[in-house]
Amino acid sequence: MVTLQPIAPQDIEAESFRIIEHELGTTDCTPEEFAVVRRIIHATGDFSFAETLRFHPQAISAGLAAIRSGKNILVDVNMAASGVSTGLLARFGGRVICRIAEAETAAMAKANTTTRSDAAISRSVADNIGIVAVGNAPTALLKVMELIDQGLFNPDLVIGVPVGFVNAAESKEILVRQPYPFITTLGRKGGTPVAVAAVNALLRLA
Amino acid sequence: MVTLQPIAPQDIEAESFRIIEHELGTTDCTPEEFAVVRRIIHATGDFSFAETLRFHPQAISAGLAAIRSGKNILVDVNMAASGVSTGLLARFGGRVICRIAEAETAAMAKANTTTRSDAAISRSVADNIGIVAVGNAPTALLKVMELIDQGLFNPDLVIGVPVGFVNAAESKEILVRQPYPFITTLGRKGGTPVAVAAVNALLRLA
Repeated sequence: MVTLQPIAPQDIEAESFRIIEHELGTTDCTPEEFAVVRRIIHATGDFSFAETLRFHPQAISAGLAAIRSGKNILVDVNMAASGVSTGLLARFGGRVICRIAEAETAAMAKANTTTRSDAAISRSVADNIGIVAVGNAPTALLKVMELIDQGLFNPDLVIGVPVGFVNAAESKEILVRQPYPFITTLGRKGGTPVAVAAVNALLRLA
Repeated sequence: MVTLQPIAPQDIEAESFRIIEHELGTTDCTPEEFAVVRRIIHATGDFSFAETLRFHPQAISAGLAAIRSGKNILVDVNMAASGVSTGLLARFGGRVICRIAEAETAAMAKANTTTRSDAAISRSVADNIGIVAVGNAPTALLKVMELIDQGLFNPDLVIGVPVGFVNAAESKEILVRQPYPFITTLGRKGGTPVAVAAVNALLRLA
């Protein structure tokens, strides 16, 4: 016998957050970091992210400043673009940018024998990017870090949480050692819902 | 020291599948079911889905027949619509339908004091739907099952993998007992990438 909890639509998120807080107990993150952790667990049903998430000390403040100043958010895949609360972002003047499906991106990838994810990042460095959020493609995250190292790209916050078995964990091991603001998850897990949840948590905090 | 595996873009998926097969070992599912399991693990980095996935015995054959006959695929959120390989689906004549963001859906939800997810399903029953894929909203999955019970909706396959803490696991406990073809995951985990991976695995099999 399965019983369903009767609950009004607008109360579902609050009730989910209550359950997460109850089961997770106390954590050693700040209240703002916890808002990100909580929304990621809400999006995945997976408490392991409470252990694998890593925040640069300035991650939250840099992300909020970028949103409030009206900067844009760059994402690696269209699924992420669909998930970000664009209405909230638009109130601050920013928009979501994703160039993965553009013809010029495919052409650049072919010419350079690289991935479309890589080319889509390279084509976006001059787009007033405040936050970069990569949930899918390790090659996109690697390209972001390479362009920053070369002084060609200067985002305020890198959310790098690619998922998978080839270079995902490795790319995040590199990100977690960087001096600039980042949010990442160690290991293979991550994904577009994780990236989107982190962005949307920041949008609500802003 | 982090070393990155040098790998050509087109080989990343094959290498990921090789790693998954190696670590997972033998399973008791059919080769077609395994193609779905493998793609879901690839999309999430989470081997626990190999244990929690449940297939109705006719799930694969019903899903493939629906795709091959040119029927449409109904999804609960726009993120899922962005993730489905629409090019592959179009070759068979089908398209992806998602009514969550339409103004009529919001109006119906308000009038009926229900969720937009629920209303978006109700508005799609006459759209020649072969596969329904719900990765986000338990209320959407509950509505699908209710409409089928009432004889008002007749999809060939229900992929019901909502994620979360309020009614997600409960809705899947109901689905797993239904007589019609389904694919689901027990417990709280699931999500849009899981739904999308299942659909895309079927599209490749077709």
